Amino acid sequence: MSEKNITLTNLSELGEFGVIETLTRNNIVKHNSVIRAIGDDAAIIKPSLNNTLITTDLLIEGIHFNLAYCPLKHLGYKAVVVNLSDIYAMNGTPKYITCSIACSNRFPLEALQELYEGIYAACQNYNIDLIGGDTSSSLTGLCISITAIGEAQEGKAVCRNTAKPNDLICVTGDLGAAYMGLQLLERENTIFRSNPQIQPELTGHDYILRRQLKPEARKDVIEILDKIGVIPTAMIDISDGLSSEITHICKQSKVGCEIYEERIPIAQETEKMAQEFNLPEIITAMNGGEDYELLFTIQLKDYEKIKEIQQITIIGKITDAENDLFLVAGEENYIPIVAQGWNAMNKE
Amino acid sequence: MSEKNITLTNLSELGEFGVIETLTRNNIVKHNSVIRAIGDDAAIIKPSLNNTLITTDLLIEGIHFNLAYCPLKHLGYKAVVVNLSDIYAMNGTPKYITCSIACSNRFPLEALQELYEGIYAACQNYNIDLIGGDTSSSLTGLCISITAIGEAQEGKAVCRNTAKPNDLICVTGDLGAAYMGLQLLERENTIFRSNPQIQPELTGHDYILRRQLKPEARKDVIEILDKIGVIPTAMIDISDGLSSEITHICKQSKVGCEIYEERIPIAQETEKMAQEFNLPEIITAMNGGEDYELLFTIQLKDYEKIKEIQQITIIGKITDAENDLFLVAGEENYIPIVAQGWNAMNKE
Repeated sequence: MSEKNITLTNLSELGEFGVIETLTRNNIVKHNSVIRAIGDDAAIIKPSLNNTLITTDLLIEGIHFNLAYCPLKHLGYKAVVVNLSDIYAMNGTPKYITCSIACSNRFPLEALQELYEGIYAACQNYNIDLIGGDTSSSLTGLCISITAIGEAQEGKAVCRNTAKPNDLICVTGDLGAAYMGLQLLERENTIFRSNPQIQPELTGHDYILRRQLKPEARKDVIEILDKIGVIPTAMIDISDGLSSEITHICKQSKVGCEIYEERIPIAQETEKMAQEFNLPEIITAMNGGEDYELLFTIQLKDYEKIKEIQQITIIGKITDAENDLFLVAGEENYIPIVAQGWNAMNKE
Repeated sequence: MSEKNITLTNLSELGEFGVIETLTRNNIVKHNSVIRAIGDDAAIIKPSLNNTLITTDLLIEGIHFNLAYCPLKHLGYKAVVVNLSDIYAMNGTPKYITCSIACSNRFPLEALQELYEGIYAACQNYNIDLIGGDTSSSLTGLCISITAIGEAQEGKAVCRNTAKPNDLICVTGDLGAAYMGLQLLERENTIFRSNPQIQPELTGHDYILRRQLKPEARKDVIEILDKIGVIPTAMIDISDGLSSEITHICKQSKVGCEIYEERIPIAQETEKMAQEFNLPEIITAMNGGEDYELLFTIQLKDYEKIKEIQQITIIGKITDAENDLFLVAGEENYIPIVAQGWNAMNKE
């Protein structure tokens, strides 16, 4: 009864330890601070003179991703990157991750291997060591839990609650693209499901699709800030949209803000797609989410150092009017900012 | 859940940030090494002269627990303890945890609060700080992901791959009780589901039920070992049954073992319940799992220091016969040990 042509491997054939062994066989440790990585009750890391930064994120199928249009390799890459983004948002350097996966036995080993290819690719690009994890069944969807551990020199870590009146508000890259990528994928998926004869129309939308499916964390900007000697006064990464993130900074710092609509960087492709969806493009930037850009504040004295940096745009200023958060459109149109970011709790 | 709670709060009313704020409002940080805990992109911890230990575990509803008979408060407690157990199994001291939860919107806030009561109770008992996490929806069951971070003085952390021939094999507490607790709960749950008029028969089984529902990690034993100046040569915690764990130690250390059946500590209540289920009691100890006791090896020279410690039993010895793992029953009956531990990958 042996069927030699079957190339997919059932997870339960291998068992938990077999699966872990297969997935981590080629895991090469890069940092010599790692005394022991995968294979024991816990990983062992040598002491460091720096502060340790720790963050964790949970990605749930049907809530955070849809396997109908999210390739597993990209998903693995993104799952790592969103965690690294949180370490960079502290002005730190990520060094290690642990990665736990729960999935149905209907997943063949080869699917998990693809997911891990993406995880390893991100580890390679960002110089990260995978030092631990857990693998389990799930009765339903795929669940990925990653914890990232990083470092920051004493006095260099940047929090959300330390913005001061008159600080300038800066943002990296451009906003709203990942959100428009998601809208496009959802639309084409809905059309495809209603009529599988219709092929998805995804050509010519590389930028917004890449921003949604394979985002990058702003390692480059953290390195630039270090090089030009600027420590932001407050910082956060943009995962839930600009309005949500600036609200976190202002609320925790007990300050207000003015953000100038015309200064908000939005890519041409994002604008175009927003028009196609009859969405004001400013909405994609304010409430879209999943940009993984950095939002930070700097002292006025650092203006000269920042203004020529191509990756950074100054979009507004911090005010002393606590709880007064405004988007300033045109000359004198002050629109209150209400955090309406993408909220995983409201989905079901 | 207590029936006094007449009004239950819907999670989507509060949103993700409201839920996190409510659950972490009373989180008091105990260690002054914590510069920033919950509320930023990442937690910040001061440098330490010790090595850092990191471990992570994922608990999935329907795979690792059944809410039909597992109270949420106990579940929260257990979710923390199983992670701490991994840090103790490295001969370390756990200090911090991050905790991520995904659950359906059908869970009221009050249910999550009960879960967190258990999490905080464990943090209190083991002197742990909750320093981060993530909260998300899930389309189906509850999912809990915890990462524990601990410390060990340089040279004190104990791995699995360092047992040597002639070392003595030791185990803490007694084995198999948690497994028999699970069998009892499963049986009574099946009876109850087939006829809800029949009340579960759980009285008189406190010990095995507690071992299943609210296990403790062996902090006490790690402290005793430190006090009497014994560093195990290898160590692991027993989560998948003795046969699975001794296989890890022997395989990784490239040694063999002899474990004497009559020496394996099994509680009377476990024995009694095993008889009721027509199970040889040795099976519950070898293949049961979820004991969260420590299995470790010591040098012969430490025998005198260990032999009077009430919490520790010497159950066998390490041999130089690589891959020859035996359970020795009676005088001369050598039974090969095959790891058949509880395997979360085989369930679906």
